[in-house]
Amino acid sequence: MAVIDYLKSNRERHLQELFAFLRIPSISAKSEYREQTRQAADWLVERMLEAGLQIAEVIPTAGHPIVIGEWRGAPEGAPTLLVYGHYDVQPPEPLEEWTSEPFEPEVRDGKIFARGSVDDKGQVYLHLKAVEAHIAANGKLPVNLVFVVEGEEEIGSPNLQSFLVENQERLRCDAVMISDTTMFAPDLPSVTIGLRGLAYMEIRVQGPETDLHSGSYGGAVVNPANALAKIIARLHDDHGRVAVPGFYDDVRDLTPEEREAVRALPFSDEEFRAGVNAPALGGEEGWSVLERLGARPTLDVNGLLSGYTGEGAKTVLPARAMAKVSMRLVPNQDHRDIEEKFIRYVREIAPAGVTVEVEALHGGQPWYADPKEPIFTSAARALEKAFGRAPVFTREGGSIPIVQAFQQIFSAPVVLLGFGLPGENAHAPNEWMSVDNYTRGAEAIAMLYDEL
Amino acid sequence: MAVIDYLKSNRERHLQELFAFLRIPSISAKSEYREQTRQAADWLVERMLEAGLQIAEVIPTAGHPIVIGEWRGAPEGAPTLLVYGHYDVQPPEPLEEWTSEPFEPEVRDGKIFARGSVDDKGQVYLHLKAVEAHIAANGKLPVNLVFVVEGEEEIGSPNLQSFLVENQERLRCDAVMISDTTMFAPDLPSVTIGLRGLAYMEIRVQGPETDLHSGSYGGAVVNPANALAKIIARLHDDHGRVAVPGFYDDVRDLTPEEREAVRALPFSDEEFRAGVNAPALGGEEGWSVLERLGARPTLDVNGLLSGYTGEGAKTVLPARAMAKVSMRLVPNQDHRDIEEKFIRYVREIAPAGVTVEVEALHGGQPWYADPKEPIFTSAARALEKAFGRAPVFTREGGSIPIVQAFQQIFSAPVVLLGFGLPGENAHAPNEWMSVDNYTRGAEAIAMLYDEL
Repeated sequence: MAVIDYLKSNRERHLQELFAFLRIPSISAKSEYREQTRQAADWLVERMLEAGLQIAEVIPTAGHPIVIGEWRGAPEGAPTLLVYGHYDVQPPEPLEEWTSEPFEPEVRDGKIFARGSVDDKGQVYLHLKAVEAHIAANGKLPVNLVFVVEGEEEIGSPNLQSFLVENQERLRCDAVMISDTTMFAPDLPSVTIGLRGLAYMEIRVQGPETDLHSGSYGGAVVNPANALAKIIARLHDDHGRVAVPGFYDDVRDLTPEEREAVRALPFSDEEFRAGVNAPALGGEEGWSVLERLGARPTLDVNGLLSGYTGEGAKTVLPARAMAKVSMRLVPNQDHRDIEEKFIRYVREIAPAGVTVEVEALHGGQPWYADPKEPIFTSAARALEKAFGRAPVFTREGGSIPIVQAFQQIFSAPVVLLGFGLPGENAHAPNEWMSVDNYTRGAEAIAMLYDEL
Repeated sequence: MAVIDYLKSNRERHLQELFAFLRIPSISAKSEYREQTRQAADWLVERMLEAGLQIAEVIPTAGHPIVIGEWRGAPEGAPTLLVYGHYDVQPPEPLEEWTSEPFEPEVRDGKIFARGSVDDKGQVYLHLKAVEAHIAANGKLPVNLVFVVEGEEEIGSPNLQSFLVENQERLRCDAVMISDTTMFAPDLPSVTIGLRGLAYMEIRVQGPETDLHSGSYGGAVVNPANALAKIIARLHDDHGRVAVPGFYDDVRDLTPEEREAVRALPFSDEEFRAGVNAPALGGEEGWSVLERLGARPTLDVNGLLSGYTGEGAKTVLPARAMAKVSMRLVPNQDHRDIEEKFIRYVREIAPAGVTVEVEALHGGQPWYADPKEPIFTSAARALEKAFGRAPVFTREGGSIPIVQAFQQIFSAPVVLLGFGLPGENAHAPNEWMSVDNYTRGAEAIAMLYDEL
């Protein structure tokens, strides 16, 4: 197959091009790197035009610019894919923990070590190489393509959503592809089909107006820290379930087939436990560790503060106590509904003698894709051809807010097709991407175009 | 009565002498006031000799010196009283909140405003004026007297206990009198007969080795902050009682007479609640607010810390959580026994999946005096004569460690006979002592000598 042959024979050049991309320190969070961040956008536009895209341009925003690339020469009726990625990177600090320079890529042990290698320069550039291969081998692509590559993902994409809305017509597409996630295990191609939502709350308990002496007042004045602990203790029942009434009402339980698919994943509870070095694992009864992590909603205290927290003994009866509590949500929970239920419940169980305020600080909806949709079966076939093994469909515990923005704005399925690997150190020193996954990723994407 | 007549006719001079004492800024906590602190000791020695004590001297310690005064001319078989007090004062800051200068006494509304007025210069100096009155009127005292006035009370009396032990023979006495407390209400003379003990603990809960992302790990890793809240919630039962097994085993319950005496005290729950501005009061069921404050043991969280406590939302699953928890103890609880019971119980209720450490940071024994002992009935008679009203015997919620040191070292009863008043602002700006209580206090002490 000419396209794959082209990729194989240009492998070394494609690697060198990625290295050039990685040498540009496009650190979006640091204003002193503004010029280099812009430089990365310009560099990418040049590569897009060289690869054969019909249009490639740098579009300014209130922050770092967005790169748009287009190829629209597919036959009538062919679908349009939108590829999203980002050219900005995390700051490299702490520098002293890097084995090689963060902006001088080095291959060791089959891994490309550099800041941005897997997050996300390598994963976005392999899409462009798949396009180049089709155009070089066949003079055309079987699909229309739009690239949207932003420079502010690592600072929360403050300008992306409005850009997408303003350019909705131009960017209209039948599916969105994002390669910014991780494979479940080496050699095991993976498509992420679930992300958990979030309802992040703050509970503030006020007792007396000011801090009091615990000797003079202790025993008759209700202690807000004790009261807060009572509230938190009642957020779970004895079976590890969240005790907020109605919390599970809208949870779409996994089907037996889905549970079987989770069970089939290669995963060791003991390795996971040892990895975090906790005395034991825990969680909701009746569900496996992987289900608890990806498919079940949860509740965690993220922060606690009250009274005296320094060294030694200070006999203060605190005036107030604070907890940050967040819930991870799954389909079809609605974060606003959960926030309301949480607020109502906490007020209801608040002990007498204190005033309790509950505030929703941040929320996001859970996301779930149906792997039986055609775009997923196409992706699965392509991945199987490229990796020699059928992909797994996985759920991640965290949230990627931009996924829902794409889905809503374009009413199109979003395919999270990641080529990272566990332990890749994204956001940490010694970030790496597997050389093999970089080239096999490009092959898989090239094959995917033919499957649509 | 000549002694009381003498006090009445010298009232103004005695007030002026106290003012001179108050003008010396003997701030023990600040090294730049070392000279002035020493000056207060020298000043007091001169006044002791003028008042007619046989011996008065400044005795150096590793810190600020201790003043000793003695009069030992009482008839054979007469008792020896030891009067303890302190000539050092708290720092006056914040200065801008003082209405008049902290070291320039001013009488307003029948109150002497000055740092140290009630804590403790006024209260210790009135004892000396009682002595002076007896010697001036009768040439002698009916009892032997030893004054021990230290200069380090406000910094925790670091050198007092060893001084008492080293001078145990010289200072031997039949009773110890301390005027450094507060009357229960204006015109209501009060003797403090109970102080609560303390067992101050720290609970440290460790979950995973490092902070984790609550999205990626939440639900399967046991959260140490949630675990800590569960532990704290189980430290009380549903009736406001401390749930540590055996906690109440050694509590000497109040007798019906004692409960009746507490009930008879002039006290408004609503005024108390309004004073701390709490939504409502709480505590152990079956006991009044005053009993909860002074006669019942309690448990309070003094501090809580875990995870992210700044502004906004950070999705951290904390590695650890910490609580400071202290228990106020009553006779005959032993703080070491309670500490052991607490540690055992917390370990027992610690949730699986976390490691829990419990440490005793600070402990002190509860103290209780039997008001039926002769020294208390003598003190009561003298107070009734001076104030025209029988005194009340009260229990304070806090601890005064030095009380037990005196009791143990001299095997003598300690009488806490205070002439302060509620709202006197000890340790705060605008500290004051009632002019009336200063003069009536001296009269009461002078009468007390005749009652022994």
